Amino acid sequence: MTTSADNASPDFLQDLSAAVDAYSPRRKYLIGVSGGRDSMALLHGLRALGFRHLVVCHLDHGLRGAASRADARLVEKAAKKLGYRFLGESCQADLEAKSRGLSLEAAARQMRHEFLARCSRSEQCHDVFLAHHADDQIETVFLNLLRGTGTAGLGGMRSQTPLRVGKAEFILHRPMLGIRRESISGYITSCRIPFREDASNQDTRHTRNRIRRDALPHLRKLFSANIDEAILRTSIILQDEEAWMQTLVPAPAESLACEELRAMPKALRRRLILRWLREQNVPEPGFAEIERVLGLLDIEGPAKVNLPGGWHARRRNKVVFLERPQ
Amino acid sequence: MTTSADNASPDFLQDLSAAVDAYSPRRKYLIGVSGGRDSMALLHGLRALGFRHLVVCHLDHGLRGAASRADARLVEKAAKKLGYRFLGESCQADLEAKSRGLSLEAAARQMRHEFLARCSRSEQCHDVFLAHHADDQIETVFLNLLRGTGTAGLGGMRSQTPLRVGKAEFILHRPMLGIRRESISGYITSCRIPFREDASNQDTRHTRNRIRRDALPHLRKLFSANIDEAILRTSIILQDEEAWMQTLVPAPAESLACEELRAMPKALRRRLILRWLREQNVPEPGFAEIERVLGLLDIEGPAKVNLPGGWHARRRNKVVFLERPQ
Repeated sequence: MTTSADNASPDFLQDLSAAVDAYSPRRKYLIGVSGGRDSMALLHGLRALGFRHLVVCHLDHGLRGAASRADARLVEKAAKKLGYRFLGESCQADLEAKSRGLSLEAAARQMRHEFLARCSRSEQCHDVFLAHHADDQIETVFLNLLRGTGTAGLGGMRSQTPLRVGKAEFILHRPMLGIRRESISGYITSCRIPFREDASNQDTRHTRNRIRRDALPHLRKLFSANIDEAILRTSIILQDEEAWMQTLVPAPAESLACEELRAMPKALRRRLILRWLREQNVPEPGFAEIERVLGLLDIEGPAKVNLPGGWHARRRNKVVFLERPQ
Repeated sequence: MTTSADNASPDFLQDLSAAVDAYSPRRKYLIGVSGGRDSMALLHGLRALGFRHLVVCHLDHGLRGAASRADARLVEKAAKKLGYRFLGESCQADLEAKSRGLSLEAAARQMRHEFLARCSRSEQCHDVFLAHHADDQIETVFLNLLRGTGTAGLGGMRSQTPLRVGKAEFILHRPMLGIRRESISGYITSCRIPFREDASNQDTRHTRNRIRRDALPHLRKLFSANIDEAILRTSIILQDEEAWMQTLVPAPAESLACEELRAMPKALRRRLILRWLREQNVPEPGFAEIERVLGLLDIEGPAKVNLPGGWHARRRNKVVFLERPQ
């Protein structure tokens, strides 16, 4: 089958082709498609590059009524036209967010991952393509600077993220992380690929939309359009440094010897304590919690500090250990 | 001697006192004082904390005519009143910038460092207090994100920076890096400390002023005032990680074995190449230069790449080496 995508927008297809160089087009992959511009471009782009065995996965979050259902129909239709199998489900992300006690954004992401886990198991396929692109990455890095999330956050999204959801294990692949939104739009336009605008992308109650629609354009005007390249470069450098540093953090024992900790560089100490808190399942440890535990190393400081979820860390006999909530 | 500063603004003095806890007030220190709000607060604050032997250093950059000279007079008068020795010089930073082929900002900084080097040698004193504070730090980190300078840049200014200028070696100390501008202003007001506004701080042709006066206020309104704390937290984490990673980079030989480089994590490879280029005095190596050298490891890639200042890097017999400009 030939689509109009085969002959147009060489830039986008060239960049995408380079990005999926290591992926065999003959293998089977899942692909998450919302029906928006980015995922429709990825879907058609991979088709044009000869990927034969995509399984198109679409979760209707049930947040925009008839518009949501129309998205699902568009994606199903596109899958059929391109010769791909379609897996669709619908949910009520807003109700789930309440019952899970999560923000809508967090609940929706969790549900997408659970949906992909089901797709992964039923299809026996562990590789999922997602359409996050360079401008998404820039927004993510910028957002994480404003949240103060450290090196891991400033590295942004990875081109490959292994996930484990229940018993399912799969990998999210993001081949468009190096491709700018403009190039994607050019491809969509020149190949006349149908897509649907998500009206919630305009909603400035969402932090990410304020970054996309206000903060970044304002900064480009104030400084230069090169800030995008600079932020992308930052994400590349920091992602590699994060990966390297992760390999240097030893597996922590159940309790930590103060003297050993004190002998470590401060950055390693912080990373070891973070790993220790995570491995013992202290909920959402962050900078403040790490600093509190570090405070225990100071023998004149407190010998016990509070942690989230009713946990405590305590120093006794030159050792720091955790106490579970009762 | 007692100044009005002794009895007011406990917050500022408490924070400053904690920050200079490791410094003996009986020792001699140089202090860079421009006559602006921040350095005048630091000068009076250190006096209030009992620092007896400060030597007040002021360089008139000759950029604002009579206003520059009035700054110098104010600083000299304050030094005299507080019982400190005063060292003043004047220069023409704009003419020097031209003759050195540098931006005005870079030339002015270079000249300040040279001036401090002369003060350090004549006073036999190797410790210089500077008045950079938390809001300067936030601006620096933000500016460096927009420049894409990586971890070192995102860590911002260090609380101690060792410098070598010619034969002089001295350390810049920044005790106010954790103190917010607001607290400094409160101290200045409540103690009625005289200072002079630098009109060039309003000039939005300077990138830093655009960050201070436009970008950051805009982002605070768009998101929250917590972004300042988040950026400061980022700088603390990244500064410590930068220091740690620096200790892990081995001293490079004159030429680099491709196989050894290939076996290293990418982040370490980048840092080793940066150190190698710097130690061989290749001018201003950055991300692009490092990536070009890394490209030599790809045996199908080019065997020679251009570097700044007429330098080249070349691969031959599985080794990468530099060729000086002829």
